[in-house]
Amino acid sequence: MRAVEIIEKKRDKQELTQAEINFFVEGFCHGEIPDYQASAWAMAVLLNGMTPHETTNLTLAMANSGDQLDLSEVVPIAVDKHSTGGVGDKTTLVVAPVVAACGLAVGKMSGRGLGFSGGTLDKMESIPGYRTDLSTQEFMHQLAEIGIVLTGQTADLAPADGKLYALRDVTGTVPSMPLIASSVMSKKIAAGAQAIVLDVKLGNGAFMQTEQEARKLARRMVHIATLADRKAVALLSDMNQPLGQAVGNALEVKEAIQTLHGRGPQDFHEHCLVVSSHMLILGGVVENEEQGRQKAENALETGQAWEMFKRLVAAQGGDLSYVEEPERLPAARLVEDQPAPRTAYISAINARIVGETAVVLGAGREKKGDAIDHGVGIEVLHKVGERVEKGQPLLRIHARDRASLELAQERLLKAYHWSEEAVEALPLFYGVVKPEQT
Amino acid sequence: MRAVEIIEKKRDKQELTQAEINFFVEGFCHGEIPDYQASAWAMAVLLNGMTPHETTNLTLAMANSGDQLDLSEVVPIAVDKHSTGGVGDKTTLVVAPVVAACGLAVGKMSGRGLGFSGGTLDKMESIPGYRTDLSTQEFMHQLAEIGIVLTGQTADLAPADGKLYALRDVTGTVPSMPLIASSVMSKKIAAGAQAIVLDVKLGNGAFMQTEQEARKLARRMVHIATLADRKAVALLSDMNQPLGQAVGNALEVKEAIQTLHGRGPQDFHEHCLVVSSHMLILGGVVENEEQGRQKAENALETGQAWEMFKRLVAAQGGDLSYVEEPERLPAARLVEDQPAPRTAYISAINARIVGETAVVLGAGREKKGDAIDHGVGIEVLHKVGERVEKGQPLLRIHARDRASLELAQERLLKAYHWSEEAVEALPLFYGVVKPEQT
Repeated sequence: MRAVEIIEKKRDKQELTQAEINFFVEGFCHGEIPDYQASAWAMAVLLNGMTPHETTNLTLAMANSGDQLDLSEVVPIAVDKHSTGGVGDKTTLVVAPVVAACGLAVGKMSGRGLGFSGGTLDKMESIPGYRTDLSTQEFMHQLAEIGIVLTGQTADLAPADGKLYALRDVTGTVPSMPLIASSVMSKKIAAGAQAIVLDVKLGNGAFMQTEQEARKLARRMVHIATLADRKAVALLSDMNQPLGQAVGNALEVKEAIQTLHGRGPQDFHEHCLVVSSHMLILGGVVENEEQGRQKAENALETGQAWEMFKRLVAAQGGDLSYVEEPERLPAARLVEDQPAPRTAYISAINARIVGETAVVLGAGREKKGDAIDHGVGIEVLHKVGERVEKGQPLLRIHARDRASLELAQERLLKAYHWSEEAVEALPLFYGVVKPEQT
Repeated sequence: MRAVEIIEKKRDKQELTQAEINFFVEGFCHGEIPDYQASAWAMAVLLNGMTPHETTNLTLAMANSGDQLDLSEVVPIAVDKHSTGGVGDKTTLVVAPVVAACGLAVGKMSGRGLGFSGGTLDKMESIPGYRTDLSTQEFMHQLAEIGIVLTGQTADLAPADGKLYALRDVTGTVPSMPLIASSVMSKKIAAGAQAIVLDVKLGNGAFMQTEQEARKLARRMVHIATLADRKAVALLSDMNQPLGQAVGNALEVKEAIQTLHGRGPQDFHEHCLVVSSHMLILGGVVENEEQGRQKAENALETGQAWEMFKRLVAAQGGDLSYVEEPERLPAARLVEDQPAPRTAYISAINARIVGETAVVLGAGREKKGDAIDHGVGIEVLHKVGERVEKGQPLLRIHARDRASLELAQERLLKAYHWSEEAVEALPLFYGVVKPEQT
């Protein structure tokens, strides 16, 4: 078998066999197949696509390329969730403790933000002392002890995916449905959870712009999970405006803490209930969404979810005084409200622009390894469908200096569209993809 | 400007600007843009194509990446020819001396064979002593002195093309029309000839299989030449069977010598007259094809072309005794005729299989740098349309050992198709593409 023949086969729109995909992934992972062959192959995959069969084989080959955890060694069933990335998406910070408080173990490895999309690790690191670099042993131990872990990748999970992703990032081969699906699922499968809730974002602030694309990605991922003997469900959720109000690391932690106290923004609160509910269903704790919602709501109301969050922070070395008094969390030097430029209904908020502006303020990174500022960010005070009066605060900008503040003000106004007529609020979800529908 | 954005633009089927193409080619040539970005870009070009404008800009950027010769410094006008590669194509060995004998300077840099397709340098090196590594100074001097040069690339011509071709070779990105056209033309433009005859082969033994593809490539190359201020014409010629009889290095030199004496195979003789005629037209020596044929035929009949060939060989250090007594040229140990397996008309000969079999015998190389055997090869004794009797010699195989001879016999029979009904001979040409037609 020769790498160039596998590239040519994909170039010529033929289906690759499992043996060919294994050969290519192993060869690339071990450095026998050079980057320049892998990138040509990735471009051929992006432009010619992959069948579900090929995508699954690619996923499994990448999952097999490194360590594979088996969480059933320490808990009867562990549930994981994954979001395809969006703006203001601090869902994990709420649903992980909610679900763990309901007795279902949540062992989750998260990532960092890149470009306009935030990352859970960056958010949690707003809490002084919080460690995101647990070892596999620490991960397993903490999962067994308290039933919740929220850290970075512990082991050498799916190294082929890591290597391929780094290459895709610099060769224009990121936005490929089969490559995205296999990248996500290879890490999830290697990370060992038996049940996975996929939160597939769609809209102007997501990688998938349309419901059709998002549904296709969701189906592909659920199908892969099923073939890999994992329970999975995918939610299609809205990213046509930021989720909740807060965009920026410490700001999002504060909003998550408010939500854990039952005082979060309504849309985000509701989003968390739905995601939690599906995690509880997959974990066998409840039978249907209604039961799941009630159980999750109950965990919030009784303070059990909040207690679980504190247990998580403490277990991973975070200073509890910062989450008990969130005003101590990192904050920006300048905080200014941006008034509404007119009296009208908000008809659209471009979430991507909001996310990119947060990067400009310093909340995110343009490229891997850039330093970030945990205090800065944006509060989106009004959402699509709301009517605002001219001069009323529309946004609150948290900046480290006047220059970035002014640049952010200028950019953020371009994210808004207005209507004289009443506009309907956006839906939170567009559907659920279950295994039988793939 | 960033390389990844240029890749993305081509991935998304947008036209690249001249500035973007220059940036990419220069960056790649100087090592600032890594191979893995260039290969992803090449795959995007292969799958999404390039406009004529982009192809021309790519050609000029590659031509500009190294030295550029100006042959008008030493001769009023120099003509070059280029074949897109085929099996048994020893045309240059005849037409270069024919045209030079007609008073038109021929300064040609040739290549080596790769895969099923032979290369002029390998053929000429069958002649002991013949140098194919002239310096630029030697090239210019010899062109001025005797009006004919046939060597390898002298200078650092189009190094970006050399680097890109090596990468394309291992990343499945060779068969792209704009990449082939720009590769050929960048070297031809940098090599400095003011007039170029392109011999675009089509058929089962060529890179272009169909007349439509070949015509498209021909138009693209002639168009590029025109924009680069060179005279050019492209001939669409047949490669649905080997050209002439001989396939293999010394065998082809012998056939070229026979042809220079007016005793070559009829199809090859005719092919050489037509190519020579177009070179003479472009060089302004004659006005039309008929005049060109007569002049070329005259150069053969008077022995002037043969004298010019000997002058070329002598000038480049070749031992004249070998061309004066061609039986002294390298020969294979085993020479065996292969009898026709049936009495019938030959309806097709797969030239690619014949070319690949020559490689098996040792006449060509699988990969760059492989050693070759100048003595081995195949003589194709009967062509498409001829009727042969069972047992009559169909092929003559020149092999270095019994094993390769038997393998060649087995393979060559598969190259033939037969018919009980009479079959027409194949045409030699399918048309001419001139600048006004592009």
